[in-house]
Amino acid sequence: MERVFIFDSTLRDGAQAEGISFSVEDKLKIVERLDNLGISYVEAGNPGSNPKDLEFFQRVQKMKLKNVRLTAFGSTRRVGIRAEDDNNVQSLLRANTPAVSIFGKSWDLHVVDILKTTLEENLNMIRDTISFFKEKGKEVIFDAEHFFDGYKENSEYALKALQSAVDGGADCLVLCDTNGGCFPLEVYEITKKVYEMFKPVPIGIHCHNDTGMAVANSIVAVQAGAVHVQGTFNGFGERCGNANLCTIIPDLQLKLGIRCIPEENMKKLSSAARFISEIANVAHDERAPYVGNSAFAHKGGMHIDGVHKNPRTFEHVNPELVGNQRRFLMSEVAGRATILSRINEVAPHLTKDSPETKRIIDKLKKLEHEGYQFEGAESSFELIIRKELGKYKPFFELEHFKAIVSEPSNSNYSSSAMIKIRVDGEEEITAAEGEGPVNALDKALRKALERFYPQLKEMHLTDFKVRVLDSNKATAAKVRVLIESTDGEDVWSTVGVSTDIIEASWKALVDSVEYKLHKNIEK
Amino acid sequence: MERVFIFDSTLRDGAQAEGISFSVEDKLKIVERLDNLGISYVEAGNPGSNPKDLEFFQRVQKMKLKNVRLTAFGSTRRVGIRAEDDNNVQSLLRANTPAVSIFGKSWDLHVVDILKTTLEENLNMIRDTISFFKEKGKEVIFDAEHFFDGYKENSEYALKALQSAVDGGADCLVLCDTNGGCFPLEVYEITKKVYEMFKPVPIGIHCHNDTGMAVANSIVAVQAGAVHVQGTFNGFGERCGNANLCTIIPDLQLKLGIRCIPEENMKKLSSAARFISEIANVAHDERAPYVGNSAFAHKGGMHIDGVHKNPRTFEHVNPELVGNQRRFLMSEVAGRATILSRINEVAPHLTKDSPETKRIIDKLKKLEHEGYQFEGAESSFELIIRKELGKYKPFFELEHFKAIVSEPSNSNYSSSAMIKIRVDGEEEITAAEGEGPVNALDKALRKALERFYPQLKEMHLTDFKVRVLDSNKATAAKVRVLIESTDGEDVWSTVGVSTDIIEASWKALVDSVEYKLHKNIEK
Repeated sequence: MERVFIFDSTLRDGAQAEGISFSVEDKLKIVERLDNLGISYVEAGNPGSNPKDLEFFQRVQKMKLKNVRLTAFGSTRRVGIRAEDDNNVQSLLRANTPAVSIFGKSWDLHVVDILKTTLEENLNMIRDTISFFKEKGKEVIFDAEHFFDGYKENSEYALKALQSAVDGGADCLVLCDTNGGCFPLEVYEITKKVYEMFKPVPIGIHCHNDTGMAVANSIVAVQAGAVHVQGTFNGFGERCGNANLCTIIPDLQLKLGIRCIPEENMKKLSSAARFISEIANVAHDERAPYVGNSAFAHKGGMHIDGVHKNPRTFEHVNPELVGNQRRFLMSEVAGRATILSRINEVAPHLTKDSPETKRIIDKLKKLEHEGYQFEGAESSFELIIRKELGKYKPFFELEHFKAIVSEPSNSNYSSSAMIKIRVDGEEEITAAEGEGPVNALDKALRKALERFYPQLKEMHLTDFKVRVLDSNKATAAKVRVLIESTDGEDVWSTVGVSTDIIEASWKALVDSVEYKLHKNIEK
Repeated sequence: MERVFIFDSTLRDGAQAEGISFSVEDKLKIVERLDNLGISYVEAGNPGSNPKDLEFFQRVQKMKLKNVRLTAFGSTRRVGIRAEDDNNVQSLLRANTPAVSIFGKSWDLHVVDILKTTLEENLNMIRDTISFFKEKGKEVIFDAEHFFDGYKENSEYALKALQSAVDGGADCLVLCDTNGGCFPLEVYEITKKVYEMFKPVPIGIHCHNDTGMAVANSIVAVQAGAVHVQGTFNGFGERCGNANLCTIIPDLQLKLGIRCIPEENMKKLSSAARFISEIANVAHDERAPYVGNSAFAHKGGMHIDGVHKNPRTFEHVNPELVGNQRRFLMSEVAGRATILSRINEVAPHLTKDSPETKRIIDKLKKLEHEGYQFEGAESSFELIIRKELGKYKPFFELEHFKAIVSEPSNSNYSSSAMIKIRVDGEEEITAAEGEGPVNALDKALRKALERFYPQLKEMHLTDFKVRVLDSNKATAAKVRVLIESTDGEDVWSTVGVSTDIIEASWKALVDSVEYKLHKNIEK
């Protein structure tokens, strides 16, 4: 099987998408997931233009990566100075990554109109910058920005830019369709020419989706000889986005027989894609090839009939290969085996045919239909399993609560909450003020419970996320709240769904407290 | 300029998408819009499998269509009977459209496994059905279902299916990638062969997006000789969707010089795409090429700088050509020039050195530091500019509000809100219940204001997003709320930030209402 190297830029080019910005924590989580999947390169930031990225590069050094070669991104040196005197070049070096990607101009228009320098000086900038990093022992990937546009207007100069990169010692020449305006047949022809001309130097491809061609152009480039493919998870990126690796990886590996990631990891693809959407806090594209919830959802009666007779009739690939599942929209069918492994963590004796398993699956389906999602909220799912198996003990009962927001407020806090609970027949009523009604309610609940369960003092919430599910229902939309908690020893996460954000938060809060108390009695 | 015929199937194949279903009214509105745009064919239903579609076909007869040829969709006759004795064939006839599209099997696997008949009988079914409709004076478009899969496994038989359609008198042979599993280079080769073999019979293309190739495959088919392109608006369709006509039309017409719709209609494309998303009640894909809100949104500082110097540097096409617009995202990476262009929309005389400009930039920085983000909330930013320039009129004053959440609730709603406002010295106090406190407050505010500003009745919220900013502060974290609103004519978006989600929502709500009222007095 042939081999292609996947270069992920979700954390760099992906972060240039409208509405997306990653914290250092977010980035570390994503690097871990990509490493786990077996991605070859992760381009994780631009330390020259964004000093905040340096903090990330320091912290990521401590991670043990099995597959990923970390890459930092930066420009060629500025006009008229030595590479070593350029601040951006120095920042890039300080990122201390094994690989760097250097972007340089290959379209004469950009040299003249944007850099405002001579065509010759730009070639020097490319060669100097690359040779500087080669001398420092780096793997250097050269991103020939606007290569295809440049080639179409002045092929001689575009090729000179590549030659300068080769002269500087570049390890890979990446042809970029930066404006995303190219079409497959021309990308194929041009890539083939470049490949023939520069072999054995490896050729890469970097596409944007402004004509809807990012994936197609990436694939035909590989068919023309490219062995390095740049893109982002879920196609995040500037304007219409970058080439979507969630499509490219299975396209190449499952359909064209070209290896991108270890075979056994392919089934992790759908959950990794969804995880990255969650971290980015954007709605996952459910229509996305391979990894969307609708990707193998059959609706037309004829299609459902065909798939029942022979799945090949309306499925180009087996959904399980990418960790997704076939769905018949009229008559929902379960993905039983996937859920069983989680059930077995609580009740190892249950099999897929146990009636308890069926009951839990039914419950799960009902909740998912309501907007719950247990990926990233495993502790809530564990509580559901416990409830269905009779392994759940309620630690308190709610009598009632009331949360009030007043504007203007008559104290430092705009919100307050009053709560009354009962534990083993004993009542407790109390109240708290807070930064918003959820915070007030959170404080009131703990205050009431700590009298009975002093171990709750060890625990605090570490993360709180809100996702609007059907956002076009505007303020009447359903919301899903995810809460992460810790007691300094473990970390757990819980979920709640409601059209009322306070109620959704309440459900997640209660799960979090109950999970902690269950955890303690079992130890 | 060459010419391609656009065949829209939003109302038929598009309605097979998960979560989409159109009423008769919806369908009539969409036909009108597509006609207005100059689409050649609209496939509007499958009267054989869906009797409800017959009502639509009756009502649509009364519309005066300038451009669209209405088309009804149906299968070849059933095995072993005459075409005229087949109920589906008769329903299709009753639709009374000038054109019909007849789908038939061209993959031998489907004939054997699904139809369970002989290869020969399937060919007869194709020929008979088409000649039946030709005798009735219809234009007949033959959809060769699974043509590419069939061709790859048994090209001789797939071509025989096409020949049978030609023998029956078909006006166009449409090659379908029904499972969406094909790639551009093979689609190009196969289409070219078919084109050469059957010319002068017109060739069409119908693609699905399961490998992310629907648009690419459609375009290369045209480059190989196809003159008829089937697809749907916004790419709606079964599983991953159909080829997206909102991408294909400008790709062909603006980039490849092949005419699809009258030139003067191209600028209506973005609003038509958004209109169809609205009717389908799905969130518009803002990252979609050409017609998404982000399609020409520049975020990276380098990109913004480049576009200011010469738009060609980072735009493959002029956004105005498709009725979209360039946007410079107000983010930490945006420079002064970006902000100035926004200021100049309100105050054209200000320059980058005006003291007002400096004041606005300082204000913007302060707000961004607090967690505001004006990317995707341009209307709130416009209000800030107005306030700083004294061009802002407060339309009402808040006396106070109180929002209350109770659990358990004593009505259908868990939340209620009470509000008191003042307009020109007159007071209004009112209350509302809602799905959560924000919804209750939203309803109460409009109720109070509509007495003074009846034009607010035209307006409704279309999107509501919540982002937790410093999520590790858990329930005391700051949240940013983004609201999108429309009055059926314009769409605007506003933002609010607070540690209290209710207060953040309140700020965004107030901005939304005030923006609408400012907009109206200036018109």
